[in-house]
Amino acid sequence: MLFLVHTYLNRAAFNACPNKEEVYAGEIKRAREARAEGKTIGLFRRADCNGSIFIIDTPSHESLAEDLRTLPMFKYWDHVEVLPILPHPVFPDFATPRPLAEVASNQPLMPEKF
Amino acid sequence: MLFLVHTYLNRAAFNACPNKEEVYAGEIKRAREARAEGKTIGLFRRADCNGSIFIIDTPSHESLAEDLRTLPMFKYWDHVEVLPILPHPVFPDFATPRPLAEVASNQPLMPEKF
Amino acid sequence: MLFLVHTYLNRAAFNACPNKEEVYAGEIKRAREARAEGKTIGLFRRADCNGSIFIIDTPSHESLAEDLRTLPMFKYWDHVEVLPILPHPVFPDFATPRPLAEVASNQPLMPEKF
Amino acid sequence: MLFLVHTYLNRAAFNACPNKEEVYAGEIKRAREARAEGKTIGLFRRADCNGSIFIIDTPSHESLAEDLRTLPMFKYWDHVEVLPILPHPVFPDFATPRPLAEVASNQPLMPEKF
Amino acid sequence: MLFLVHTYLNRAAFNACPNKEEVYAGEIKRAREARAEGKTIGLFRRADCNGSIFIIDTPSHESLAEDLRTLPMFKYWDHVEVLPILPHPVFPDFATPRPLAEVASNQPLMPEKF
Amino acid sequence: MLFLVHTYLNRAAFNACPNKEEVYAGEIKRAREARAEGKTIGLFRRADCNGSIFIIDTPSHESLAEDLRTLPMFKYWDHVEVLPILPHPVFPDFATPRPLAEVASNQPLMPEKF
Amino acid sequence: MLFLVHTYLNRAAFNACPNKEEVYAGEIKRAREARAEGKTIGLFRRADCNGSIFIIDTPSHESLAEDLRTLPMFKYWDHVEVLPILPHPVFPDFATPRPLAEVASNQPLMPEKF
Amino acid sequence: MLFLVHTYLNRAAFNACPNKEEVYAGEIKRAREARAEGKTIGLFRRADCNGSIFIIDTPSHESLAEDLRTLPMFKYWDHVEVLPILPHPVFPDFATPRPLAEVASNQPLMPEKF
Amino acid sequence: MLFLVHTYLNRAAFNACPNKEEVYAGEIKRAREARAEGKTIGLFRRADCNGSIFIIDTPSHESLAEDLRTLPMFKYWDHVEVLPILPHPVFPDFATPRPLAEVASNQPLMPEKF
Amino acid sequence: MLFLVHTYLNRAAFNACPNKEEVYAGEIKRAREARAEGKTIGLFRRADCNGSIFIIDTPSHESLAEDLRTLPMFKYWDHVEVLPILPHPVFPDFATPRPLAEVASNQPLMPEKF
Repeated sequence: MLFLVHTYLNRAAFNACPNKEEVYAGEIKRAREARAEGKTIGLFRRADCNGSIFIIDTPSHESLAEDLRTLPMFKYWDHVEVLPILPHPVFPDFATPRPLAEVASNQPLMPEKF
Repeated sequence: MLFLVHTYLNRAAFNACPNKEEVYAGEIKRAREARAEGKTIGLFRRADCNGSIFIIDTPSHESLAEDLRTLPMFKYWDHVEVLPILPHPVFPDFATPRPLAEVASNQPLMPEKF
Repeated sequence: MLFLVHTYLNRAAFNACPNKEEVYAGEIKRAREARAEGKTIGLFRRADCNGSIFIIDTPSHESLAEDLRTLPMFKYWDHVEVLPILPHPVFPDFATPRPLAEVASNQPLMPEKF
Repeated sequence: MLFLVHTYLNRAAFNACPNKEEVYAGEIKRAREARAEGKTIGLFRRADCNGSIFIIDTPSHESLAEDLRTLPMFKYWDHVEVLPILPHPVFPDFATPRPLAEVASNQPLMPEKF
Repeated sequence: MLFLVHTYLNRAAFNACPNKEEVYAGEIKRAREARAEGKTIGLFRRADCNGSIFIIDTPSHESLAEDLRTLPMFKYWDHVEVLPILPHPVFPDFATPRPLAEVASNQPLMPEKF
Repeated sequence: MLFLVHTYLNRAAFNACPNKEEVYAGEIKRAREARAEGKTIGLFRRADCNGSIFIIDTPSHESLAEDLRTLPMFKYWDHVEVLPILPHPVFPDFATPRPLAEVASNQPLMPEKF
Repeated sequence: MLFLVHTYLNRAAFNACPNKEEVYAGEIKRAREARAEGKTIGLFRRADCNGSIFIIDTPSHESLAEDLRTLPMFKYWDHVEVLPILPHPVFPDFATPRPLAEVASNQPLMPEKF
Repeated sequence: MLFLVHTYLNRAAFNACPNKEEVYAGEIKRAREARAEGKTIGLFRRADCNGSIFIIDTPSHESLAEDLRTLPMFKYWDHVEVLPILPHPVFPDFATPRPLAEVASNQPLMPEKF
Repeated sequence: MLFLVHTYLNRAAFNACPNKEEVYAGEIKRAREARAEGKTIGLFRRADCNGSIFIIDTPSHESLAEDLRTLPMFKYWDHVEVLPILPHPVFPDFATPRPLAEVASNQPLMPEKF
Repeated sequence: MLFLVHTYLNRAAFNACPNKEEVYAGEIKRAREARAEGKTIGLFRRADCNGSIFIIDTPSHESLAEDLRTLPMFKYWDHVEVLPILPHPVFPDFATPRPLAEVASNQPLMPEKF
């Protein structure tokens, strides 16, 4: 099942975090695992720097909550919005995970600043 | 450039439209063209039936406005929200159009009711 | 999967509906079917008369949208809010449908006025 | 009388609580008592991890306030919303407590993380 | 049980009502009955002319919904807000109906214009 | 003149107050004085524990501000809303203070927890 | 007593009014009367053309409601906001009506377009 | 040019200010200067104690910003709203400063508590 | 003085306008005049097609209101927001009108669809 | 591509910053660089002192996010709003950077106070 998730970063809280780099690296590691598991259908950033947006395919609300709660950045979110969405009848393929082969798994991580 | 677009349907206005089926068919035709042009990065429906969500890659704000305004359903939107987004450094491929071959262009259109 | 659904009635539109009683009877018939199918986990009314609240267990977002859209009263909702929820670890049984036997299926319908 | 209660957790405040596990255990103990008393009609979690939702049958507003205030987590709620609701005439049974026998009172508590 | 009820008048709809005076007279008649029944704990008007405010003591949510729905002006409310309230421990008497004797039941109705 | 006043308690600030009981006792003392002065027309609690509601009859906006500012709990309010209201033409008596005799002035104060 | 009143014009409704000029002239006539009565402490227009703002000194909420309701434009307001205000201790004179002599009562009415 | 300015006091911040009386005295001194300069057209307090309201006639947006920023209480405002307003064609005189002579410049400052 | 003005188009009202092209042509003519008068500092469109944004330098609130009210499209705005702004001390030149010579006054009007 | 950006300053956070002058000087330096790069199409201040407004022409959402994040004041923004806008067909020149020659690059920096 697909969910559109908006996360809003509490920048002051994250900037006060002593091991910011480590937490963020953990977030990226988790994102790659989720992609490998076929959960991540889309992952984007807000151009206004207020947070991230991702489309996640997760079998149940339990797994959705677990996916959210186990993200290292979870503690630094001001709030999160979850919207249940559906594949569109015209292009059901958009709702399917993108074949991993297309993406070099060791994709160099573009620098990330908060 | 990527935009996350939320459209909110004015159901009363659309239900009062005399050629509803024709307008909707035109919308689907346009959606297929946009996909062929590589513009449509994602297209989904809200599970609460309040409207659609699409991620569009369009070269400029001019083309974005043109893309929105030329959609047959444009007149029946209550309002539309446009959010500029970015590819995420971890998975830049999510920001690229999905190869058309994956999708039977003559994809039977699942029935659509408003 | 569980969803908490708030529906807000457009009273003016529903009061202008020529076959109000028939539409409402259809809504009740559908509610009984959904209960028999084990979908309806809870169904309540707002005491402020602004609409209804139901907890629905439906396997997918597709079935959720279908469940909403096929309700006879769908056309008379001002808007609808859908919130994905989870069983609570302390009482997972609340998330399960109540055995039909407990309820006389031919439950006399308490009069309903809008 | 039935109330739909949304509680929104102040995660930063609860994460700063020295005896978090103890407070949460107290909350669960209280939830079980309330169920045994026939007050808890439904208890769910928001899949977006922002808090809990419960339907409570309590004889008066005094008991409602007392039920809320005496919950160990009360101090860690950012805010709480209370909505008076009604049994639906079609399924009055949804408004009745579920027989305890159905639920192993020593229900193993699924792990709870904030 | 006490509820603080805010009703917001849809002035355009009420001004378009052909038998406005009759509907309003019915509303007053009902208000007097409710007072006699001991339900009406307080009844006031908003000084900004946007609607009325009343504190009602009604035994259940069913009776609350019935009280609201059966008011002649119900159809002309834009929306209604219901807030469950409690007697204050310092002055529990405020929550009790005022003895009818204090009020001449044939209280001349001050002219009411919308 | 009548005002409907909603006060919203800043629970964290009040819980951090060293002499909470003393401040609250001062609040009750003041409430009794105001009642004796004929100012307090109604005093209630929100069942959602978010604060109090009172209807105050005070001769001027100066006295209203003074009444609010001199309440011991004034410093612990998150915010306050003041709505000018009117007696209703049907029951002007609701706008008058209730005779003190009806209430044992040494009304034992029900325990108050925040 | 002083009130800051914001009125928001329903332009579509007022533009559809057959005798717009007459209604507006009536509004001006009433404004002059209110000034002569010493009620109008200030009267301004919003530069965004959304409506008017006035500060009115009226002895009671009854007179406030009467003042609002008897304005010819009352029917064409989308909504109205009333805020109780106080003279400031530094300049109590701002709260007093301005002597009429200062203003040529036959002040030529600058043309008013909606 | 006229502006209606709403200032909302951050009471917690101002209560924590070590030299509160001194800051407030500076605010009053500035208010008297502004009145003498003919800038202050109106100055009032909100009866809900949430802040002040003033109508200021200032030649430009630069002077408006300067006027706001140089007020000693500026640092203790939670937020400020500025609304451009116009003299009303019926009473242009309301937009003019009130002759100073009417007000004893050494107006004893009514005690001010926050 | 500079104002940032957001206008929100009531698309349904404008689409129902019999002489839409003529009204729009009048709007463009007016825009060119305002530019020639040095009033228009900036004029843009919202890429979400919800309306226009312009920065206007107008000597007073009177002229601002007049400028807004005399625009042919004024009647078809759902609402308008006006924000007083200032030149920035770093680049005061942005607040000055752009020399007309730079722009062919007979600039071919790109087609405009609503 | 053009974006209208509203930044809202967290005044308390910025006032607590030890090297406020240095941070602000860095902000101005960056603003001049952006102007030289042709990115800054407009830069203004809100007259209500709540923050700044700028129109930026930046080739992509990546550069937009980079432009925002690398501003020294970024850390002291309460939140930021980004609105995609378009040149208006009537005056496309407004969307172009203003020739640098018009502005003395060593423009004396008007004092800036927060």
